[in-house]
Amino acid sequence: MSADFIALDWGTTSFRAYRVAADGHVLDTIAATEGILAVKDGLFEEALEALIGAWDVKLPVLAAGMITSRQGWIELPYLPCPASAADLARALHMHTTLSGRRIAFATGLSYRAPDGMPDVMRSEETQVFGSLDMGISHFVTPGTHSKWITTEGDRLVHYATYVTGEVFAALKDHTILGRLMAPGPDDDEAFATGVRAALDDPAGFLHRIFSARSLGLFGELAPEAISSYLSGQVIGTEVAHAIRDNPHDAEYAVLASPGIGGRYVKAIEIAGLKVRYGDPQAIVKGLAIIARKAGII
Amino acid sequence: MSADFIALDWGTTSFRAYRVAADGHVLDTIAATEGILAVKDGLFEEALEALIGAWDVKLPVLAAGMITSRQGWIELPYLPCPASAADLARALHMHTTLSGRRIAFATGLSYRAPDGMPDVMRSEETQVFGSLDMGISHFVTPGTHSKWITTEGDRLVHYATYVTGEVFAALKDHTILGRLMAPGPDDDEAFATGVRAALDDPAGFLHRIFSARSLGLFGELAPEAISSYLSGQVIGTEVAHAIRDNPHDAEYAVLASPGIGGRYVKAIEIAGLKVRYGDPQAIVKGLAIIARKAGII
Repeated sequence: MSADFIALDWGTTSFRAYRVAADGHVLDTIAATEGILAVKDGLFEEALEALIGAWDVKLPVLAAGMITSRQGWIELPYLPCPASAADLARALHMHTTLSGRRIAFATGLSYRAPDGMPDVMRSEETQVFGSLDMGISHFVTPGTHSKWITTEGDRLVHYATYVTGEVFAALKDHTILGRLMAPGPDDDEAFATGVRAALDDPAGFLHRIFSARSLGLFGELAPEAISSYLSGQVIGTEVAHAIRDNPHDAEYAVLASPGIGGRYVKAIEIAGLKVRYGDPQAIVKGLAIIARKAGII
Repeated sequence: MSADFIALDWGTTSFRAYRVAADGHVLDTIAATEGILAVKDGLFEEALEALIGAWDVKLPVLAAGMITSRQGWIELPYLPCPASAADLARALHMHTTLSGRRIAFATGLSYRAPDGMPDVMRSEETQVFGSLDMGISHFVTPGTHSKWITTEGDRLVHYATYVTGEVFAALKDHTILGRLMAPGPDDDEAFATGVRAALDDPAGFLHRIFSARSLGLFGELAPEAISSYLSGQVIGTEVAHAIRDNPHDAEYAVLASPGIGGRYVKAIEIAGLKVRYGDPQAIVKGLAIIARKAGII
């Protein structure tokens, strides 16, 4: 089948390009570690051609992610929430490379919470626009910086970022909480114990996490289980806060691969809520929707 | 004035020895970076003599801190709360070194919280026993691992550890939250803004701290102010949780030097509570009390 366009998800530490058929089917994927931080001296065009040079230069490219941030190729101002895929399509920035490739850059969304705090994202909104056909209005995109996103109709109305993945890694690698840990497979029971402790006392984060050490010291948690337990503590803290203003019968979609996504599904289930997996590649569908609305494909 | 005993506060990353007069007055202090982690192959006696060898070998030594932990010189089991200075005096472990120095090792206290979580400390209880004459029953020992301690009469009845200092350092040095920071003097206003945000939404820690980045990105927080702001967010989160079960008219003593102690005093004041400084060297008074109860001096 011939390709219709190229979808580009170019983030801080990863690069993903998809050759996409007219019906939205992914024909080829190129995944690389050349995130924008790995591109030196602004040589983004060279980096792109080195990765997807074999793909037809005539195919239009739709790009999303940190590639449109201050550290990226072209900085685009955020659109404020609420915003729809049509709003993103109207704000596309068109660029033609020296090799003649036409690239449409999609920007991200900003949000000002009622408490005055600003929030930012680039690419998660596109995953959500690609997932609206799930009939769900609460989405989670787990990761280094998780986003909890709420939609109304075809618009993304508000969201909140949680520094969960990065905090967990910093706790594990750079505090005493990692010292008693031993490698081991995921421990579901230890993870669930951590989640429950967090749901019971979400404001006690800085205190509760110390138990990852004290339970180890007292021999009440095996070294191989400490990492899963601490992960439960951290993700549970996030879940407890993220769900509190939503209706209790809300259903959540987790947009992630089964590894990290599975932990979120479990934590949300422990909190007594409805949850299912979304498509971890929903960004491709989202970019296709934006491309069609912009008349590019 | 002749000395009466030597007080030793030997922690994970620091060593402090005090030559103390009969009336409790400190005659000399030796402070060094030879914490227990810096002592190789269990050569604690050699490390001690290298530091205090010039002090009279006949003076009794009272030692507290991580020196009695698993990684220390002699591991002593914790005493459970509630416990008094007299209980610690009864549990002293006596040791005579090859050079003839008599050392009395004081252990620390463990606590099992109502939610089942164990907690541990070594040396902060001695600071508190040395501060009971303040007539206060709520104490804070800020630091890498802060402790919030409650006394009844002469007994320490319960406490909680917060991994505050270590989490702040890990966030600053090992997450994106430190990226926009620039060095600068303490910014009281930014610190207070962070504390207030934390007091308003203590359960939102993992979300709120992202504002240390987003406010910087939007130019709403100067790079030089971000560190103070994040410090306010972290300490405010600790304070909000630590005070919640105490009577609102409780008075708090902060046992720390003005640098870190000042931040805690400010945060507790912003929370609308009574607070004053305690003696940052209260551990010397505490060790003197234990020594007298044990009949060593």
